Amino acid sequence: MLSINSSKVSAQQNERKVRIAKIEIYPAYLDEYRAALATHAKTAVQVETGVLALQAVYDKSHPTQVTVFEVYASEAAYQDHLKTPHFLKYKSGTLKMVKSLELIEVAPIAMEIKPELTGNTKQ
Amino acid sequence: MLSINSSKVSAQQNERKVRIAKIEIYPAYLDEYRAALATHAKTAVQVETGVLALQAVYDKSHPTQVTVFEVYASEAAYQDHLKTPHFLKYKSGTLKMVKSLELIEVAPIAMEIKPELTGNTKQ
Repeated sequence: MLSINSSKVSAQQNERKVRIAKIEIYPAYLDEYRAALATHAKTAVQVETGVLALQAVYDKSHPTQVTVFEVYASEAAYQDHLKTPHFLKYKSGTLKMVKSLELIEVAPIAMEIKPELTGNTKQ
Repeated sequence: MLSINSSKVSAQQNERKVRIAKIEIYPAYLDEYRAALATHAKTAVQVETGVLALQAVYDKSHPTQVTVFEVYASEAAYQDHLKTPHFLKYKSGTLKMVKSLELIEVAPIAMEIKPELTGNTKQ
């Protein structure tokens, strides 16, 4: 049973879509953009089964540079995410604030997270 | 009581050190480096109270490009981390594999992680 369960977990993990989004924001919209992104990330992870994590940070030395570390359960979960009202609202609402956006498909090497880090929203 | 607890949580979160490490690996050491980093991340998050998360990925299009998303409870926790036997072993063991290393101090905008993402080590 243990090996069967392990295989299931491993298959689920292999199906995951992990991505880094590098976003540059126009300086005039820094606060407004951060608020919109924070709200969007909170809603998406709370509401969508397939959005496993959205971690967003800004560079302290270059605050217009934002990085989002995204984990979806699968490509299908990500495609569903793109159709949600909260994503469409975030996307259209922040369009004028975003100077550039680069999406990088990545694969995990390690995904070590203490349980206490979950549910700690800075809202 | 609720507001007191909220303040405590908020103060703890503000003390956190969040960082992105961008690492370029020599192609000859790709597998060896990934294994060393995976082992190190697992040990650090398991053993050290102050290492809250170490998430490492590589760019699928440029596998020599590794990004580590690091969360420590505080600057002091990070300084302690640098003195641990597992970190020193990782650092000295991977020195020849690393072409370049860039450390970027960041601040959180959102830190939304589903509980199921914790404890899912790919080892």
